[in-house]
Amino acid sequence: MSCCQHEAGLDPGFDTAFTVDASRITFGRGCIGEVGDRAAALGMRRVALFTDPSVARLELFDNAQRALRDAGLDVVTYAEVAVEPTDESFRAAAAFATDARPDGYVSVGGGSVIDTAKAANLYATHPADFAAYVNAPIGEGRPVPGPLAPHIACPTTSGTGSEVTGIAIFDFLELHAKTGIASPALRPSEALVDPDSTDTLPGEVVACSGLDVLSHALESYTARPFTQRAAPARASARPMSQGANPWSDLGSREALALLGRYLVRAVTDSSDREAREQTMWAATLAGIAFGNAGVHIPHAMAYAVAGQVREFRPSGYPDDKPLVPHGMSVILNAPAAFRVTAAADPARHLVAAGYLGADVSSAVQADAGEVLAGHLVGIMESVGMPAGLADVGYTDADVTSLAAGAFPQQRLLGNAPIDVDEALLATIFRGALSYA
Amino acid sequence: MSCCQHEAGLDPGFDTAFTVDASRITFGRGCIGEVGDRAAALGMRRVALFTDPSVARLELFDNAQRALRDAGLDVVTYAEVAVEPTDESFRAAAAFATDARPDGYVSVGGGSVIDTAKAANLYATHPADFAAYVNAPIGEGRPVPGPLAPHIACPTTSGTGSEVTGIAIFDFLELHAKTGIASPALRPSEALVDPDSTDTLPGEVVACSGLDVLSHALESYTARPFTQRAAPARASARPMSQGANPWSDLGSREALALLGRYLVRAVTDSSDREAREQTMWAATLAGIAFGNAGVHIPHAMAYAVAGQVREFRPSGYPDDKPLVPHGMSVILNAPAAFRVTAAADPARHLVAAGYLGADVSSAVQADAGEVLAGHLVGIMESVGMPAGLADVGYTDADVTSLAAGAFPQQRLLGNAPIDVDEALLATIFRGALSYA
Ligand SMILES: NC(=O)c1ccc[n+]([C@@H]2O[C@H](COP(=O)([O-])OP(=O)(O)OC[C@H]3O[C@@H](n4cnc5c(N)ncnc54)[C@H](O)[C@@H]3O)[C@@H](O)[C@H]2O)c1
Ligand SMILES: NC(=O)c1ccc[n+]([C@@H]2O[C@H](COP(=O)([O-])OP(=O)(O)OC[C@H]3O[C@@H](n4cnc5c(N)ncnc54)[C@H](O)[C@@H]3O)[C@@H](O)[C@H]2O)c1
Repeated sequence: MSCCQHEAGLDPGFDTAFTVDASRITFGRGCIGEVGDRAAALGMRRVALFTDPSVARLELFDNAQRALRDAGLDVVTYAEVAVEPTDESFRAAAAFATDARPDGYVSVGGGSVIDTAKAANLYATHPADFAAYVNAPIGEGRPVPGPLAPHIACPTTSGTGSEVTGIAIFDFLELHAKTGIASPALRPSEALVDPDSTDTLPGEVVACSGLDVLSHALESYTARPFTQRAAPARASARPMSQGANPWSDLGSREALALLGRYLVRAVTDSSDREAREQTMWAATLAGIAFGNAGVHIPHAMAYAVAGQVREFRPSGYPDDKPLVPHGMSVILNAPAAFRVTAAADPARHLVAAGYLGADVSSAVQADAGEVLAGHLVGIMESVGMPAGLADVGYTDADVTSLAAGAFPQQRLLGNAPIDVDEALLATIFRGALSYA
Repeated sequence: MSCCQHEAGLDPGFDTAFTVDASRITFGRGCIGEVGDRAAALGMRRVALFTDPSVARLELFDNAQRALRDAGLDVVTYAEVAVEPTDESFRAAAAFATDARPDGYVSVGGGSVIDTAKAANLYATHPADFAAYVNAPIGEGRPVPGPLAPHIACPTTSGTGSEVTGIAIFDFLELHAKTGIASPALRPSEALVDPDSTDTLPGEVVACSGLDVLSHALESYTARPFTQRAAPARASARPMSQGANPWSDLGSREALALLGRYLVRAVTDSSDREAREQTMWAATLAGIAFGNAGVHIPHAMAYAVAGQVREFRPSGYPDDKPLVPHGMSVILNAPAAFRVTAAADPARHLVAAGYLGADVSSAVQADAGEVLAGHLVGIMESVGMPAGLADVGYTDADVTSLAAGAFPQQRLLGNAPIDVDEALLATIFRGALSYA
């Protein structure tokens, strides 16, 4: 581990330790079949099974449902999850859970499904006004008062890492802004990560969710180090987003190496099962890393990019509403953002580029931002991403409004390795309009 | 991750998934001061604080005791832990806990202390004959019937990894054999890993415990892959020692890289705080890895080496009884063992040697065992290890009895990448007599 950065920050008033909190994870082909035994072992008897309408039609969903029934559990299914969920769709799911009175939750789907199950579990277990638990300043940011019902998350994309994080993200419709709920209580009790489930994933979803993963790893690795964050008032109050630390660094570097090797293959050849399996493992590792370190500028910007969408409708996703898929909304900002953050720690940005497969043998520190950004743009091209925010419908005239939309994401922006104001966000948005 | 080995084993009847179960870990300078807040957060009110007589005299122990009292907790101290514990010393500690009726445990010390606290917690919480929970065939191997009281482990050596494992090891005096108790229920609820505590460690203890760590990493990395272990009857019954898997591989490789870089420095210069901190981080990572994958031949052999000791009294350790420190008893077997296991997967053995710092650029697969063994012997020399089992008092005449002593460790031997019978153990013991 490169510890110099961490050592450099040692200072009274800053934190000197980091905490690793991981939930149980099972990874491997066919492991979704373990869900019945595991739900029973967690004490569930009446399970709320969450999915979205497309995943509900897949064999893997049948397998999960059957495994739960075979374990003698009572199953109530909610297959109405909205892809890229909203406050409305979260509320609907919470109303379902409140009525159905389950004693445990199983989610089978991508981040949209897992996040929706987290929210339903939260509001059914600790009823409150919807705004109560939503991150401030958009919501009240009230702490979750106690543990939730057990929840087994079975991700079917590769993937958000939501199965190992305490975060649930949604689009606040009237505000045209994405935001979220963040609490350790939201972390699922267990995850079953079954690479078989990626067999049916459209290439576009592999690309978007894989680039979300790639940015999780890059942002965790370049986040403000934990030794440059104020020490918590009490040890047990150390935040989930602690900043880069040796634990998150380890998972991030491995995820970057795997994605550099396998992501393009996984997107372009749906029969390349090795590449899809390795991409899914990278998603889990990056989820562990960013759940522990936190993400920063590209994700903060993504909330505005997704929230202010006008007409964009990507292939591979449901076409009932305009949307910029989460991973796309993140990665389109990433090259422009890393061009700016590189100055904070050029060595780290170069190491990251090297793990992703860039040739850094002759690079000097002053090139770090350019080398990383250039390599990212190459990967984005290879997997069919738009060539910048202009290609999903934004123009220079939107930059001020995008910056204003991203600036409230202070939980994320405070995790960046540099100080970020609205003017800097506008500069980065401008840089992200076109990489062509 | 090198996945070819895992893929190769895919076969009906073999396992196809692995499970990661990690407890909460806090790592960083001064974090032992968090113990009061964390014990209170776990609901403890009356804490049994375990340590050994030497650690009891250190400032770090005072810090822990004060932090617990400052949090308003009632503290009862047991400072009688035996270094390299025995069935007798485990029983004495359990009797103390049974009388003291604590609702939580804090251990401050090396593996000897942490293991003793685990055993005391077990027998005080679920009283039974001593043999009940001891691993078969030496004990009855009865499953632990339920959860234990919360336990915060604060390791002060670098180190066994006991703070993250569900294992407690002791010397069964009348049998002249080491053995243990293994159950997920034994895993401490939290670990506080404070590198400040290594400031006072004698170089000999850094060497022995660091080489234990090194062998944890090497054995986990070379263990029989999880895809070559029979699938469990029920998912929730997957064993702790699952065999090598991508998760344990990641921690093992990082631990090897750190030890290759820092172990000799940490042993030979007690003022090299960076090296001691990195060695401690390696210990934690290797603990996570071996707690998840399992160890094999060198550890199985160590149980006999430590159990049949005659007169050896190493410097840096209490001199009230002959003993071969655990790490020494492990590492003395390692070069001979890896010479034999290399054939099972030469590529992996070479990769491991490379992570440790060996020059493998021109090595061919047929050299793998030799390259790894030779590099290990070099490290052992640099940190003042004996040059083989002969130097701790064994001769060729002991080989049969040592092999007979190690053979019952089937839980470990079954985890080796090759089949192991008593004759092969004798061959390896003979190879371990002298590396001079
Ligand atoms: N909670 C967190 O930590 C976290 C982290 C990152 C992103 N997110 C959120 O997760 C959401 C994105 O999740 P996602 O990228 O996993 O995609 P998704 O859940 O939105 O699904 C994308 C599309 O893929 C389909 N799909 C999913 N699995 C499939 C399969 N196995 N086969 C065929 N089709 C399948 C879905 O039906 C949907 O149409 C966003 O709302 C984002 O904000 C949450
Ligand atoms: N449970 C597991 O998973 C596991 C794994 C490996 C080993 N073990 C067991 O752990 C034991 C060995 O533990 P260990 O290697 O940590 O050593 P240890 O606990 O036996 O301690 C070794 C010596 O170092 C002293 N010491 C400890 N911390 C000190 C400090 N900070 N400053 C000065 N002196 C200090 C002790 O007093 C003792 O004299 C063995 O019994 C072994 O079998 C258990």
